[in-house]
Amino acid sequence: MPTDFTLQCPVPTASDDTIVLAHGGGGKMSQRLFERVFLPAFQNEALAARHDGALIRVGGQSLAFTTDSYVVHPLEFPGGNIGDLAVNGTVNDLAMCGARPLYLTCGFILEEGLPVATLQRVVESMRVAAERAGVEMVSGDTKVVDRGKADGIFINTSGIGLVERAMSPALVEPGDAVIVSGELGAHGIAILSVREGLQFEAPIVSDTAPLWEPVNALIEAGIEVHCLRDLTRGGLASALNEIAQARGLGILVDETAVPVAEPVRGACEILGLDPLYVANEGRFVGFVSMEDADRAVRILESAGKCRKVSIAGRVLATADPTVLLRSRIGGMRILDMISGEQLPRIC
Amino acid sequence: MPTDFTLQCPVPTASDDTIVLAHGGGGKMSQRLFERVFLPAFQNEALAARHDGALIRVGGQSLAFTTDSYVVHPLEFPGGNIGDLAVNGTVNDLAMCGARPLYLTCGFILEEGLPVATLQRVVESMRVAAERAGVEMVSGDTKVVDRGKADGIFINTSGIGLVERAMSPALVEPGDAVIVSGELGAHGIAILSVREGLQFEAPIVSDTAPLWEPVNALIEAGIEVHCLRDLTRGGLASALNEIAQARGLGILVDETAVPVAEPVRGACEILGLDPLYVANEGRFVGFVSMEDADRAVRILESAGKCRKVSIAGRVLATADPTVLLRSRIGGMRILDMISGEQLPRIC
Repeated sequence: MPTDFTLQCPVPTASDDTIVLAHGGGGKMSQRLFERVFLPAFQNEALAARHDGALIRVGGQSLAFTTDSYVVHPLEFPGGNIGDLAVNGTVNDLAMCGARPLYLTCGFILEEGLPVATLQRVVESMRVAAERAGVEMVSGDTKVVDRGKADGIFINTSGIGLVERAMSPALVEPGDAVIVSGELGAHGIAILSVREGLQFEAPIVSDTAPLWEPVNALIEAGIEVHCLRDLTRGGLASALNEIAQARGLGILVDETAVPVAEPVRGACEILGLDPLYVANEGRFVGFVSMEDADRAVRILESAGKCRKVSIAGRVLATADPTVLLRSRIGGMRILDMISGEQLPRIC
Repeated sequence: MPTDFTLQCPVPTASDDTIVLAHGGGGKMSQRLFERVFLPAFQNEALAARHDGALIRVGGQSLAFTTDSYVVHPLEFPGGNIGDLAVNGTVNDLAMCGARPLYLTCGFILEEGLPVATLQRVVESMRVAAERAGVEMVSGDTKVVDRGKADGIFINTSGIGLVERAMSPALVEPGDAVIVSGELGAHGIAILSVREGLQFEAPIVSDTAPLWEPVNALIEAGIEVHCLRDLTRGGLASALNEIAQARGLGILVDETAVPVAEPVRGACEILGLDPLYVANEGRFVGFVSMEDADRAVRILESAGKCRKVSIAGRVLATADPTVLLRSRIGGMRILDMISGEQLPRIC
């Protein structure tokens, strides 16, 4: 069994003139599109901060405001469907801003011919997920497009949260511990297994879950959380690169300390995927000072909030914003941001 | 030339088991889907109020929070494109809640193969529209789906506004004047003209525009605005029916007092459309007490904020929530909510 492997991404061949799937992959091409098209048009502090959500002030209150569209294919997969994904994803973007999620809106784009029963199952999952996360779905919109002009259901959810503690890449310090909140890769592999008709010995189910409860536990325990990021498109590797670049500091990750469940690791090896790049929907990375790290792990694990939490690395004092990986066999390599599209339409 | 005409809607033939275009038309079938699928799942005051946006309280502040997806086809049309439509539409939903629009988010769903140049034109229109409306685009998200699984660009915009004056269907009173803020139907006919390759003597351009400025002028002048609604999908007829039903009162409209530009009226006659059902993107209906009505019209028309503003009807004292139309030839008929889909993908 190989103990180290190289990521095989499809290298985008299209020029920069045409949208390709990798523009939505959360990696280098997404970043380039953002920098080339969106950032120049909408210049403001909130957008430039490149947080998971915008931090805004409204009448003396500090709020987080975020949006995400969900185009996952297939609509239903082991452990969830597009509905709970759409609620958890936006709830988690708020949580990553240190904000208590309060209100969501949802916008549906439906394809003509969709069975209403499918929509009802998805909406029921949204109801359950919203209840679990303690948020209210206060406004919505439904559009229908002609058959063949969408793919069943697309959902946008936007959310507002009340900032309980300001967090941002700017607060990350040299020496900070990098905490990974649980085993990685289950969401991506669960999606892939349905899409490709793969059967594993042990079924792999999506990790989709709301994350405010563990984040709030850290805040209430007085842990000074510097920065959080959920590990969706592009996985841990891309999230760490984003933060390294935003803060201008290097990060070192110890591959043996990154928690990956055995069935997911096995599936990744068969499929030629690197779990560090596979998308999750209920996992995050947190930056806290090294003195707080052990206590933070215990708090996250207490009362079953998270499982297999790990201190997987630390922030370096180097001004070179590179993410380095000490691999299983002891070598060091650069853990780059995903450059192509490992697995499209994962969320 | 006929002076009265009957609306010819395609009658939906599909059962309630399958999504059809009319479910997104803003009429009876949209309403039924909302009542059958969404309302039972997400029970809360804000959603039940059936406003254009949700009124929420966050830390002592009264905010409006709204969302809309835009799937207009074609992406570009005379007078605008999907980008300024997406900004204006959400700005206007906030304005209709009596809220000063502050912050927007945008979620893009792009189809693989889309020219980046098209996206850039759309984003540039969004920039200009946001600047004009005085809102900041603070957060965004981009997803890409495979070729043939979307239709170029879909955009969701969500918005937050600060409520300056509470307005709602519940505040509408018997005897209230029904004010229409300008000539109707240009947006729908502009879209249709491109889609069907129609040429008119005078080009008809979309009325897409932000509406906070005229609404704010009414508020600042001390006009007690009871309720506002923008006249998008389903047009004036559907908006009036929604409010009549929400408030449980009848409304009488005088067809001769409803402003419609001659080129639009002519186009509607040729196409067999009723301008009262055609979508607009920069027009609204307002309810104020009859004593305030003339002054409200003058304020809206001052400084070119709106043109051809008209008192087009009044709220009846009957508890039967029916909208009645006194037609051009003097007869009375029921002006029902749109039941099919007059023109799909108008916004």
